[in-house]
Amino acid sequence: MRRLVEYACKRASSTTSNNPHIQKIQRLKLALIVVFLQLAVSVLFVNFCEYSVEADAADTRNSLNPVFGGFKKNQKLNGDYKLFQDVHVMIFIGFGFLMTFLRRYGYSAVGFNFLLGALIIQWALLCQGFYQLNENNKMELGIGSLFKADIAAATVLISMGAVLGRTSYMQLLIMGIAEIAVFSANSFLGSDVFQVADAGGSMFVHAFGAYFGLAVSYIIELRKGKQIENSLEEARYTSDIFAMIGTIFLWLFWPSFNAIEATGDGQQRAVINTYLSLAACCVTTFAVSLILSEHHKFDMVHIQNSTLAGGVAVGTSANLMLQPYGAVLVGAAAGLISVAGYTKLTPWLSANLGIRDTCGVHNLHGIPGVLAGLIGAFMAGIASESIYCKTLYEIYPARADANMTATAEYNFLKPGLGRTAGEQAGYQILALVVTVVLAIVSGILTGLIVMLEFSLPLKEKLFDDELAWRLPDNEISDVPLFTFKPLIKSDYSSYKRVLFSK
Amino acid sequence: MRRLVEYACKRASSTTSNNPHIQKIQRLKLALIVVFLQLAVSVLFVNFCEYSVEADAADTRNSLNPVFGGFKKNQKLNGDYKLFQDVHVMIFIGFGFLMTFLRRYGYSAVGFNFLLGALIIQWALLCQGFYQLNENNKMELGIGSLFKADIAAATVLISMGAVLGRTSYMQLLIMGIAEIAVFSANSFLGSDVFQVADAGGSMFVHAFGAYFGLAVSYIIELRKGKQIENSLEEARYTSDIFAMIGTIFLWLFWPSFNAIEATGDGQQRAVINTYLSLAACCVTTFAVSLILSEHHKFDMVHIQNSTLAGGVAVGTSANLMLQPYGAVLVGAAAGLISVAGYTKLTPWLSANLGIRDTCGVHNLHGIPGVLAGLIGAFMAGIASESIYCKTLYEIYPARADANMTATAEYNFLKPGLGRTAGEQAGYQILALVVTVVLAIVSGILTGLIVMLEFSLPLKEKLFDDELAWRLPDNEISDVPLFTFKPLIKSDYSSYKRVLFSK
Amino acid sequence: MRRLVEYACKRASSTTSNNPHIQKIQRLKLALIVVFLQLAVSVLFVNFCEYSVEADAADTRNSLNPVFGGFKKNQKLNGDYKLFQDVHVMIFIGFGFLMTFLRRYGYSAVGFNFLLGALIIQWALLCQGFYQLNENNKMELGIGSLFKADIAAATVLISMGAVLGRTSYMQLLIMGIAEIAVFSANSFLGSDVFQVADAGGSMFVHAFGAYFGLAVSYIIELRKGKQIENSLEEARYTSDIFAMIGTIFLWLFWPSFNAIEATGDGQQRAVINTYLSLAACCVTTFAVSLILSEHHKFDMVHIQNSTLAGGVAVGTSANLMLQPYGAVLVGAAAGLISVAGYTKLTPWLSANLGIRDTCGVHNLHGIPGVLAGLIGAFMAGIASESIYCKTLYEIYPARADANMTATAEYNFLKPGLGRTAGEQAGYQILALVVTVVLAIVSGILTGLIVMLEFSLPLKEKLFDDELAWRLPDNEISDVPLFTFKPLIKSDYSSYKRVLFSK
Repeated sequence: MRRLVEYACKRASSTTSNNPHIQKIQRLKLALIVVFLQLAVSVLFVNFCEYSVEADAADTRNSLNPVFGGFKKNQKLNGDYKLFQDVHVMIFIGFGFLMTFLRRYGYSAVGFNFLLGALIIQWALLCQGFYQLNENNKMELGIGSLFKADIAAATVLISMGAVLGRTSYMQLLIMGIAEIAVFSANSFLGSDVFQVADAGGSMFVHAFGAYFGLAVSYIIELRKGKQIENSLEEARYTSDIFAMIGTIFLWLFWPSFNAIEATGDGQQRAVINTYLSLAACCVTTFAVSLILSEHHKFDMVHIQNSTLAGGVAVGTSANLMLQPYGAVLVGAAAGLISVAGYTKLTPWLSANLGIRDTCGVHNLHGIPGVLAGLIGAFMAGIASESIYCKTLYEIYPARADANMTATAEYNFLKPGLGRTAGEQAGYQILALVVTVVLAIVSGILTGLIVMLEFSLPLKEKLFDDELAWRLPDNEISDVPLFTFKPLIKSDYSSYKRVLFSK
Repeated sequence: MRRLVEYACKRASSTTSNNPHIQKIQRLKLALIVVFLQLAVSVLFVNFCEYSVEADAADTRNSLNPVFGGFKKNQKLNGDYKLFQDVHVMIFIGFGFLMTFLRRYGYSAVGFNFLLGALIIQWALLCQGFYQLNENNKMELGIGSLFKADIAAATVLISMGAVLGRTSYMQLLIMGIAEIAVFSANSFLGSDVFQVADAGGSMFVHAFGAYFGLAVSYIIELRKGKQIENSLEEARYTSDIFAMIGTIFLWLFWPSFNAIEATGDGQQRAVINTYLSLAACCVTTFAVSLILSEHHKFDMVHIQNSTLAGGVAVGTSANLMLQPYGAVLVGAAAGLISVAGYTKLTPWLSANLGIRDTCGVHNLHGIPGVLAGLIGAFMAGIASESIYCKTLYEIYPARADANMTATAEYNFLKPGLGRTAGEQAGYQILALVVTVVLAIVSGILTGLIVMLEFSLPLKEKLFDDELAWRLPDNEISDVPLFTFKPLIKSDYSSYKRVLFSK
Repeated sequence: MRRLVEYACKRASSTTSNNPHIQKIQRLKLALIVVFLQLAVSVLFVNFCEYSVEADAADTRNSLNPVFGGFKKNQKLNGDYKLFQDVHVMIFIGFGFLMTFLRRYGYSAVGFNFLLGALIIQWALLCQGFYQLNENNKMELGIGSLFKADIAAATVLISMGAVLGRTSYMQLLIMGIAEIAVFSANSFLGSDVFQVADAGGSMFVHAFGAYFGLAVSYIIELRKGKQIENSLEEARYTSDIFAMIGTIFLWLFWPSFNAIEATGDGQQRAVINTYLSLAACCVTTFAVSLILSEHHKFDMVHIQNSTLAGGVAVGTSANLMLQPYGAVLVGAAAGLISVAGYTKLTPWLSANLGIRDTCGVHNLHGIPGVLAGLIGAFMAGIASESIYCKTLYEIYPARADANMTATAEYNFLKPGLGRTAGEQAGYQILALVVTVVLAIVSGILTGLIVMLEFSLPLKEKLFDDELAWRLPDNEISDVPLFTFKPLIKSDYSSYKRVLFSK
């Protein structure tokens, strides 16, 4: 292991060239790799994918009149499509703009989020479909596959937040490809083998993505070379407002994210619980940001991120009988913990363990994800048929008896494993532990792999769009475009002082 | 009354300190008040809230197969959720970004909108639930409660627009809490006691919010201290474009806002009428902006706001048989009146009555809201069973006979008060008058309360994010980040002149 | 023809005045024309429009209980409304922000898009309704009319992209009014006469809009006057990020655009195919942008536009049995072709044929639209009942026998023309050719008409908001608002060099 790290670090330090011509050639080579990746994915689609039953016109049932003998014939898009589109907005607008907060990394934030997301949703369709091949060894794609792919993409984009500005886009692509393979296996393990409930994906998506990303971040910081204080790792006034577009769309559509995999009336609860948790989390975040920040002023970093922690923390139990007050309390706790993480834990981890975390995903997805897993285990431990009636067995299929079967009244019943509430709680904890451990281990290995990439950004070029993007070549400020009139006298003086001093 | 005003003004002038240390302590105290507010709300949730029937897994009906004996079993999210989410986007993206137009108040606009909205939706759930307690003295929360809470939040955010930049966030919170209490009572009075129809909330939400906000604004301007010409009360090029994000999302989703409380096919009409009214209003706004503005150029203030007046003006009658041409004409009239309000009335009110209105909510919500109320009364006066068939009694329940009852064919019928069309029109007018009067009176009282707040912004700190936010500490323009190339010669000269003169 | 062009050019060159006072009067006159247009539209609404059956309360069926004898009674909004709203967002946020990329044309981009869209949706309701008058010579407006109107608006906004920054808003309005008249006729011809399938409107909307716009662009460039190199025809860092808001919302909701006119399970396929095509197109665009752009860096122009070409290219066949891999391959091809178009074809067309194309709509809508038409013809040529079962006749009604009739099982069947697959393919090609030819011819004529407008922008005022908008009059950069701290030494030096040299 140690040797591996040393080799990777050495290789990483040696592969970066300062020669513009070599850099240009390297960039071209990378482009060809992207072409190759898309081609490889395409070939897999040719061999393995077909339409799911409800989208397959060759299925004779789809020609039938919708009111003829059932509601599943020839069906148009239904309510699930609404939820899918909300999640879709979260992935590409939400995550994309949330990461535009850096002053000169906006193109990369929204652009790499776009590229990475677009590749990963295709790759995730394949990886997730791999566990559900039909008798012809084909994956069946439907609207359900699409939103599962989007949710998988969220995992990668969370990890991207941990290393934002400190990787090339190629490193992100490599990281994403590796991550989705492990993510799909872990989700299958949790949902199908351990039969664990995690409606909002707080364990399998948020905690996994955060700890995976932190592990990768830890490894790539081992690279030799002096640490450069980079003032590009800050916000601009405008970039902070762009980031709020991401924050608010995430906050608004999070109820859909937590509801989309819930069953029956669990969707209603998922929306109500998430709405309440996020509202309480938002208020708490503002308050705690004032209390813990210097000068007791609001800090945009907290507002942009910690306001969302309530959505993560309530995720695993969103569809459960948490009660409205439970949701409010979970949200408030999440806001408190998340802001405290930003002000205390992140600087400590960076200074003492060398774990850097550009967007603070540990505070938004990591800790709240673990908290969600614990709450989920607690709720599983107290779940009973008196609270959930028969839907208990829809939510926790493993709790059903081995001889339970579907009836006309309860069409969702099926034989289970006869688990007790306590056993189910135990499995919930198990899944949480396995998720975090697997995320860290696979993240470390992935970190070593991405260090082998042959065009790493120089340390002095981090957090800078200039590395990968053609920038507007006559970029100037708004100054000359408009008539100038000083604001208030003192402002103008400081302006002069600034410009003409030194 | 006069004494009260004098006391409040005096207190307001004396409570503001220039000492940075005292200010810091004050800010900390305020933060603790926010914590307390969230705690208080949480306690009320513990005692009073539970899930509504369709979200309560303990209701055995929710375990039943959806196709078994009715469509209401174990139900997933339906079309109402789509409408709710549209309204949700309007509240937090729409209002939030609409108010970012000020040059240096973007953090506060979108941030305070977020904080205020998040607290108010929780508080509104409680205040509105108070009028609908069930036999166990509990409020039942469902998707319907959530969108009602969002609509209530709109009222407060409209009032916020009137005082934008001239209050602290704590004043906004206090204002919002007081406002929702009165708003809920007024809505209950109008809908349940007067039995008035106001599908799009133009009276209860828009007119109420606007006149309440203007009353608060009037009071807080009584504070002693010289009036400072503050050039921060203007837009920047970039902030104006951010504001357009808010405008357009409001414009797009307004049909959902007006439809969400409509019944049956009234939802279809609400969408069609609102769509047409907004389209006609938008075109008219552009034209009238050219005509009434200096130099006959488009004015962004009008485009950002008056284009939306058609949504307000058509609100009360959105679900009625207004006919497509009626909707178009209402929209065109609203655009005309609103732009005229911005160019003529707002400056007059400010100069002569001392009523300032930062966002011009009087022109976007106040006057169009009153107009909507009048149109609604007119439509009620001509409504008959020949136009609406039996849905007349769904729209105006008070017009039903005292002995009307639901049948298999008409399941929405119930005993009413046997009102005539004329009587219904009278009640519509009554509700409008009561709404405006109550808004003004309660707004004045609320204004006096918020003046007691012990950390008022100094007049020279208005419209400035710096008061409450940690700003990027090495904020600079884009200039040094990019290669510089002058645009056109004359531009460059003026640039030099600007920079080097004086 | 030649004479006409000469006359128009001469008139165009002579009608522009430099006198500020005359310009002011001209602007006022134009405003009155806008008022007149809205009035004219209103009058047409009075005479020709009424509610469609499901929105008409006077239809007794709408009073019936929804579960009483069928699902169409008294109906609230359904799934189609979701699709409509997605398209609505695409038209006003998507197109509006996509065009904000120019450095000083943001107000105009989003503002004119708003004005033009709002007028055109009203006008399109009338033009499209003209072909579907009922027995009383009335048009029946329902949700279906609204989304058709939005789609029509897309056509005009595509054309606007071709001439962006080089026309006055009045020219755009005139262009839009003429275009919709021809567009409606062509759509009627294609859909109802030729009975051609074009679910996503790639031929009738995208190809038509692009070639119409290019024809107009060609004509307006004939105007005499020296060509001015205008450095305003470039992006700013911030404006490029605003444009990404448009790009991503278009990308996200495009599946809804392609699905909205599809029938039955074709909606499911439309979503899956469009999602896959766009994902593959996005990845390919990034890769090809690197390969073909100078220095092998990403070019924002490609990312903003070519990533969307997959949505166009898959449009005509979106609801067909293209298979998942087919969608992926179409998307990848579209990305490749579109980026190649931006880097090679657009400069060539501009330099050699004088066809300028500000947003490159030829590469985003034109070529991909033609490609879509060809793929649609191919798919029609291989379509058979073994692939589509009975839905074949829902998708291609002309392929049904003359004696086919609806049954309880297959309620969509109706008598057709008995076309073979090959014949249908032929008609698809015919419709494509007619669309492109009609677009070019009518675009040229429209170009001549818009040249007669009496207030053309001077060539040196192109791409500039100043022409039509009141701009913030104390616009300054962010510099003086914040404490200044140099970033990195070298940056600061270049800053100084820039500011103080010359």
